[in-house]
Amino acid sequence: MNARGRFLSVEGGEGVGKSTQILALADAIRQAGHDVVITREPGGTSGAETIRQLVLGGSAERWYPRAEALLFAAARSDHVERLIKPALESGKWVISDRFLDSSRAYQGGGSGLSDADILTLHQIGSRGLLPDRTLVLRLDSGEAIRRASARDAGQADRIQGRNSAFHSDVDNAFVSFAETDPRVRLVDASGEPKTVTARLLSEISDLLIKS
Amino acid sequence: MNARGRFLSVEGGEGVGKSTQILALADAIRQAGHDVVITREPGGTSGAETIRQLVLGGSAERWYPRAEALLFAAARSDHVERLIKPALESGKWVISDRFLDSSRAYQGGGSGLSDADILTLHQIGSRGLLPDRTLVLRLDSGEAIRRASARDAGQADRIQGRNSAFHSDVDNAFVSFAETDPRVRLVDASGEPKTVTARLLSEISDLLIKS
Repeated sequence: MNARGRFLSVEGGEGVGKSTQILALADAIRQAGHDVVITREPGGTSGAETIRQLVLGGSAERWYPRAEALLFAAARSDHVERLIKPALESGKWVISDRFLDSSRAYQGGGSGLSDADILTLHQIGSRGLLPDRTLVLRLDSGEAIRRASARDAGQADRIQGRNSAFHSDVDNAFVSFAETDPRVRLVDASGEPKTVTARLLSEISDLLIKS
Repeated sequence: MNARGRFLSVEGGEGVGKSTQILALADAIRQAGHDVVITREPGGTSGAETIRQLVLGGSAERWYPRAEALLFAAARSDHVERLIKPALESGKWVISDRFLDSSRAYQGGGSGLSDADILTLHQIGSRGLLPDRTLVLRLDSGEAIRRASARDAGQADRIQGRNSAFHSDVDNAFVSFAETDPRVRLVDASGEPKTVTARLLSEISDLLIKS
């Protein structure tokens, strides 16, 4: 019987190097002797991926904020029940590219839904499962935009396509989560990839030692 | 400026004559001088219909109860925001073939979700909008099964395909809603269609007079 695995989520806007860093983090955790499952939100399971297509496709006006928040919570419920919980129970570590805090930052601010509403949906949909640690990669917004637009010009989805004031509100939301909850850590994403990976690992060193 | 319209929902299992009775009810309300919009759940708007296909299609195990409840609430949110509320505000009457009470009866019992959970999802998704009256058409289960199977043998969707104990629990749920909330009225669906329509109209006569 294995010990329960650890659950990490990695957050951060487009262009901060999230995908690269998740792979590097997984390598380091595997070298410490653990099985690692990498997944993403919205999506991660076949049911959740079909919801992802619904919620990210179409025009910006396709969904009102309340319906959108419920769809994200439905996708997350499927993801938790079918992938994350079974993996953790079998002793694997799970790294999710985005999780609940993305919903809190993107849907919970200023769209008529409160942070408490988002947390209530998560309680009902996923019994309130939280990551053991949430790592938020941050760049100053100028550098993030340069990196993101160099990579995938013109391919923004419904949410990436929102304006810079929106993205600044999102960043402020992550900062406030980190200020009020030790689970959430802000990590500087500037500099060499290896330097950033080292910063991420230092934020989970206690979890790696204890497990 | 018109007065706000009235919102009716009609509930009842397969084979109770719901579609026929909704048309007859709409005719009678139109004759009383009102515009009537007939709609249905899950669905009623293009967004909600795409969710309907997700939630009713596929195998019985496609969705766990929590994800299913969130998907129904998302579809309802779109339906309320884009169709039901605007119609009511413009003075039209709305008759919906199923609404919230179907979720309470079908998802709220015995699947790990409580009635309070379903009502909370409705509060967040649709600001708690309730029908002015809910009419529940009921037949003894033997007659309903004969009528339904004569009509569409072998075409049951994910939810219709559940067993008779499940459908009996659903009926018991509607009975308990009617016992605790005067909004919900049980209506005998046996006998000639005209007789059933007269029973339905007697349950909304106060609304027709007041409006």
